[in-house]
Amino acid sequence: MQNILIKNGVLVPMIKSGKYFAGDILIENGRIKEIGQIISADCMVIDATDCFVLPGFIQCHVHTVQSLLRHQADDLELLDWLKKRTWPYEAALDGDGVEAASELGIAELLLGGTTTALDFGTTHNHDRVFKTARGMGIRLFSGKTHMDTGTDVPKQILENTEYSLREAEDLGKKWNNNGRLKYVVEPRFALSCTEILMKEAVKLARKNNWLLHTHANESINEVRRVKKLTKKSNIAYLKKVGFLGKDVILAHGVHVTDSELKTLKDTNTRICHCPGANLKLASGIADVPKYLKNKIVVALGADGPPCNNKLSIFQEMSLAATVHKIKHGPRAMDAWTVLGMATREGARALNILDQIGTLEVGKSADITIIKRDSMSLHPDGDPASQIVYGATASDVRDVLIDGELIVRDSKLLKFKHQEIQTKAQIAWKATRARMKI
Amino acid sequence: MQNILIKNGVLVPMIKSGKYFAGDILIENGRIKEIGQIISADCMVIDATDCFVLPGFIQCHVHTVQSLLRHQADDLELLDWLKKRTWPYEAALDGDGVEAASELGIAELLLGGTTTALDFGTTHNHDRVFKTARGMGIRLFSGKTHMDTGTDVPKQILENTEYSLREAEDLGKKWNNNGRLKYVVEPRFALSCTEILMKEAVKLARKNNWLLHTHANESINEVRRVKKLTKKSNIAYLKKVGFLGKDVILAHGVHVTDSELKTLKDTNTRICHCPGANLKLASGIADVPKYLKNKIVVALGADGPPCNNKLSIFQEMSLAATVHKIKHGPRAMDAWTVLGMATREGARALNILDQIGTLEVGKSADITIIKRDSMSLHPDGDPASQIVYGATASDVRDVLIDGELIVRDSKLLKFKHQEIQTKAQIAWKATRARMKI
Repeated sequence: MQNILIKNGVLVPMIKSGKYFAGDILIENGRIKEIGQIISADCMVIDATDCFVLPGFIQCHVHTVQSLLRHQADDLELLDWLKKRTWPYEAALDGDGVEAASELGIAELLLGGTTTALDFGTTHNHDRVFKTARGMGIRLFSGKTHMDTGTDVPKQILENTEYSLREAEDLGKKWNNNGRLKYVVEPRFALSCTEILMKEAVKLARKNNWLLHTHANESINEVRRVKKLTKKSNIAYLKKVGFLGKDVILAHGVHVTDSELKTLKDTNTRICHCPGANLKLASGIADVPKYLKNKIVVALGADGPPCNNKLSIFQEMSLAATVHKIKHGPRAMDAWTVLGMATREGARALNILDQIGTLEVGKSADITIIKRDSMSLHPDGDPASQIVYGATASDVRDVLIDGELIVRDSKLLKFKHQEIQTKAQIAWKATRARMKI
Repeated sequence: MQNILIKNGVLVPMIKSGKYFAGDILIENGRIKEIGQIISADCMVIDATDCFVLPGFIQCHVHTVQSLLRHQADDLELLDWLKKRTWPYEAALDGDGVEAASELGIAELLLGGTTTALDFGTTHNHDRVFKTARGMGIRLFSGKTHMDTGTDVPKQILENTEYSLREAEDLGKKWNNNGRLKYVVEPRFALSCTEILMKEAVKLARKNNWLLHTHANESINEVRRVKKLTKKSNIAYLKKVGFLGKDVILAHGVHVTDSELKTLKDTNTRICHCPGANLKLASGIADVPKYLKNKIVVALGADGPPCNNKLSIFQEMSLAATVHKIKHGPRAMDAWTVLGMATREGARALNILDQIGTLEVGKSADITIIKRDSMSLHPDGDPASQIVYGATASDVRDVLIDGELIVRDSKLLKFKHQEIQTKAQIAWKATRARMKI
C-alpha cells in the first residue's frame, strides 16, 4: 500500500471541541503515522492547502438498498410510508436491484465524505450489499433485515424465524471482518418481529460479538402500536428481550419517556439521530440535548433515500445544529458538538473509537478533505461553523479509508459515476415494474 | 444581445404544480420567444440534456451586506445576535466592506440559481451594493436600512430621521429601474425605528411606487418588546403606521396571532418565510400552511449569511418542505408547493409575476438550469421532489437573467471566484479590526 502525505491542510482532529491547526498528516500502511509539520517524505503528496482535513464522517443509520426508491415516497408518515411504498419496493427488489441500489447509496456516501456507515439491509440478497461495499472500499457495518410477523408486510419479505436467523449467521460468518466489513444483526422493529425473533437475534449477535441495530420510538403511531402489541413501552419491551446495551444502536428515539431515557442511559444503549428523515416522515424531533445531558452516546445518520432524500451528513449536521435551538435555546447543539456526533461519537457508538473517529497517530487513516471553493465557506471562520453551517456534500474533495484514496477531486477513483447512475435507473425501472402498488 | 436556444431539457414552467415536459426554449432579445420542440435556430445553443430548466429562483429576504460576518455569529438569539454581532459589524463596515460583502453574497446567490433577490442593506454606502449588483447582473430589489432609535444600536448606524429618508429617496431616484435594479424602502424593524420614520417611509415608497420591506414577528422577545413599546401587536402597529399592503413584504412572521393573520390577509401583505434563519436564531417555525390556507402570498428567503449560514434556496426549500410536516402532517407543503414559493410566489410577492417567476412566452428569460450529476438526483422521479429534496446549490449549472448568460458550467462568466473570495477575506479582516466587540 502506497504511503501518503497530506500537506498544508487545516487539521481538525475532533479529539476535543475547538481544536484545529495548520499541519500535515503522514499515512503509512493505512494508518496515521505522524501529525504535525512534516517536511518531506518519500510518498504520494496530497496538497490540502485551503482545505479542512477531518476524520472521515460516520453515519450510524442508513438504508443503502432503498436508494432506487428515492423521490418516490414523499409526503407519507412512517407506517404508511412502509406499507405503501417501502415494503412493496423491498418485496420487488431482486439481487441486481439490491446491488444497483447499494452501489448508488454507497457512492453518495463516499462522495459526501462518509467513510463508515451502519447500514440497514432488506430481507434477501444481502450478499450483494457486502460484495458491492467490498468493491467500493467503504467501511460498512451492515446486516439483512429480519421480519417474521406484521399484517402489512408483503409475504415476499416475511420470513420463517429460524430460517431468517440462520441466513444472518451465514452472512455474518462470511462477511464479518472481511476487509472493512462488519456484520450487524438487524431485526426491523418491534412491529414486524416476534418476541422470539428479537430474543434469538440478541443471542446470535452476542454469541458472535456482532452489534445489534433496530428502529425504535420513531413515530407516535409506531409507539402506540408497540404499546398495544407488547403491553410495554418500546424501550421497556426492548429491555425485556435483551435488546439494549453498549452493543446496540437504536435509530431515532424521537418519542421517549423519561423512564425510557433512564433505561437507555442505564444500559449504555446508543442512539442514532436522523433529523432529516424525522422531519420528512412527520415523526418529530428527538430530544438530543436531553440525551447528551444524560451522557447517552448519540450519532448521526441520514436514514434512507426515500425518506430524506439525500444521504448527506452535511444536511444532517446542519439540521442537528439548528432544529434543537427552538426548544433548548440558541446555545443548544453548537457546531463542534454536532461535528463531534458526525465523527468521534459515531465511532464511539460503534465501539471502534480506538480505531477511527478522530485524527490520532496509530488510528486507521479514514480521512475526509473538504475544499473551500464554495462562496458559503468564505470568509474564513471557525472550521466547525464553516463545515456544519456552510458546507454541503459537494465540498468534499478527497476521501481516504485505511489510507486508500477512494475519492479524489470529487470523483470515485475506481467507478464511473454515470455507470452507477445508469445501472440504478435500469434497476429502478425493473423493480418498479414488479412493485405491487 | 445574443439569442439563445436551450435544447433538450426537462422544462418545469411552474405555472402549475405537477407540470413538466421535455422541450426547448428559444430566447430572443432577453425574452422567452418560444417553448416546445424547436428544431433549429440561428443562435447560441445550450444543451440541457438530463437537466431541469426552471424559472430562476427568487429569494424575498436576504442580507448580502452581511456576508463578511458569515460563521462569526452562531448560537445567539435574534436580539443578542443583532446587539452583539450584527450591528457592531454593520457599524464597522466601510464602502469597500459593503462592496466586498455584497459581491460575495450576490455571487453565492447567482451560483445557486437565484436570479432575483429582495435584499436588505445597511445604513451607509448603499450605492456600493447597487453598483456591485449592476456589474454582476442579478435582478436586485434593495434599499438602505433605516434606524433612528433603539438603545442597542451603535451610533454609527443610527441616523437622523429626515436625513435617512432623504438618502433613501436619492438612492431610489438614482438606482430604481437602473438596469435590473429596483429601490425598496426598508426600515429595519419596529424596535429601531420611530413611528414618524415608519410613516414617512411608507409615504416615500408609495409616492415613488417602490416596495416596502421590513422584519416583523420574528422572535418572541422582539414581539414582546414591540408590544411594550407600541402598546400594540407588531402587525397592529404596522397597520397603524400604514406599513401593510400588496406592496409590503414582511420577513419572517413566525409569531403571529390569529387576529394579526387576519390583518395580513385583509391587507394582502406578503410574507417571506426564512426557515433556516428562524431555526438557527432559535426564533421558531412560521406557520406557513396556515398562511397558505388563508391565501396569503408566501415567498422564501435565506436571510443573512451570519444567521443561516448559506444563501442557498435549496436549503430553504428542503426546510420549508419538511419542518411544517411535524405540526401539519406529512402532506403539508409538498415539493411542488415549495418549488412554487421559490419561483412563482416570489415573483407574485414582488408584484412582477407578469415579468418573471414562470417559464412563459413573453416573460423575461430568467432561467436556472440544474444538472443531474449528483447521486442524490438518481434514479429519476418527480422533478419537484428531486429539486426540493435531492439537490443543493452546487447542482446549478447555468443561470440566465434577461437572456444574459451569467453562470455557465457552475462558474460566473465575468468574475473570478477566487478574486471575490480574496477581496471578501481582506475586507473582513479590516472590518473585524474596526468592530467594537
